[in-house]
Amino acid sequence: MLTAHTIKILQSLDKKKFRQKYNLFLVEGNKIIHELFNSNFKIKEILSTDSQKLDSKDIPISHITENELKRISFLKNPKDSVAICFLNTQQEITSPDIQLVLDGIQDPGNLGTIIRLADWFGIEQIICSEDTADFYNPKVIQATMGSFTRVNVVYTNLVEYLSKTDHINIGTDMEGESIYTFKRPEKLNLILGNEGNGMRKETEMLLQKSISIPRFGNSQSTESLNVSMAAGIILGQLFSK
Amino acid sequence: MLTAHTIKILQSLDKKKFRQKYNLFLVEGNKIIHELFNSNFKIKEILSTDSQKLDSKDIPISHITENELKRISFLKNPKDSVAICFLNTQQEITSPDIQLVLDGIQDPGNLGTIIRLADWFGIEQIICSEDTADFYNPKVIQATMGSFTRVNVVYTNLVEYLSKTDHINIGTDMEGESIYTFKRPEKLNLILGNEGNGMRKETEMLLQKSISIPRFGNSQSTESLNVSMAAGIILGQLFSK
Repeated sequence: MLTAHTIKILQSLDKKKFRQKYNLFLVEGNKIIHELFNSNFKIKEILSTDSQKLDSKDIPISHITENELKRISFLKNPKDSVAICFLNTQQEITSPDIQLVLDGIQDPGNLGTIIRLADWFGIEQIICSEDTADFYNPKVIQATMGSFTRVNVVYTNLVEYLSKTDHINIGTDMEGESIYTFKRPEKLNLILGNEGNGMRKETEMLLQKSISIPRFGNSQSTESLNVSMAAGIILGQLFSK
Repeated sequence: MLTAHTIKILQSLDKKKFRQKYNLFLVEGNKIIHELFNSNFKIKEILSTDSQKLDSKDIPISHITENELKRISFLKNPKDSVAICFLNTQQEITSPDIQLVLDGIQDPGNLGTIIRLADWFGIEQIICSEDTADFYNPKVIQATMGSFTRVNVVYTNLVEYLSKTDHINIGTDMEGESIYTFKRPEKLNLILGNEGNGMRKETEMLLQKSISIPRFGNSQSTESLNVSMAAGIILGQLFSK
């Protein structure tokens, strides 16, 4: 049985402050928890209503009731298990040829979708401004569908990082070169800005190139595509060559 | 001031049954409401906390309080205005060269995102199976960001429709031809299946071709991309040629 104290701690993990205080975050659902076993993430304990489905090796599993699961889950429809994991604090910045760079992405769903996209295209690293949504937010973790175990997400001072990189810094802009004619350089940072305001002025000044997704048809709307959708279409095109 | 009766009717419009009963649906936010003025949709009335920002021509506007807006809005953060609109019952099926066909898409957010994508690429019509999420669901309308005014969304018996079409029926499948080598035919239906189960067997039997988005990198995950993201990447590629 879970103590009231444990439940209180677990419930607090939807806030960054408490994730950092306890050095913990939650992963929900056997399907995603399975992906943790082959990753660098360390699991403290698994709480499960259906523990027989998990071959968790040396990780302690406790059986909990449906009711307890409901109290600690962050999902509308709680799944079978919750893994309590340690934050990954031993992170190194590497230098893969193609990277995504996020400048102030706020929506956890967008961040999760972008991590899932990166995983699909084999992009191993995403560099984020310090004010980008937190990787360990339960909504981010769940939206990645397990991809968070395979993509290195690093938070840093973007202006400093983009000033020193040996990659070509590429932004998106309605006036930029069409993705259909753009020739992909060997090493590139694809920079995606905030949902409402785009990228910061300071970031924009460090761009070497801008690209755009052409709009077809007669639509007069000034609406742009959602940032994660734009990322998907651009990556789809970059990988065609 | 809104009567209790009016509020009750408006609140019921999140359910398809009541939208059909009253022949009404809601559109929220001045920005999207502006797009209605240049569309085929007929507005019954606009309720606004900030009516001076709307140049609504002959449409009656009533001033409402912030509190009234909160009660009738379906948004977490209600915007300035709500337009009460008539369902469009005078819909005709046309035959544009490129169409999307949805076989049981359930999530209103996905349907909205796909409508927005269609608008971006100038695709004028989407054919839906009868069990696809309802176009007039407030979550669909809001997710389209106004694009619902420019894309004809038709519900019909898919098996019948796809048996008679003179377009090439194209599905997506991990084993399909890569989108990077696929040559786009002049007239095509791009068919997208249900989020969990893909397309129905009966629909699959009417496919003339299957295509796939190649996965890069070493990911062993069996996870596929979200259906609207897959649609975006495929359309991006189809329009490159």
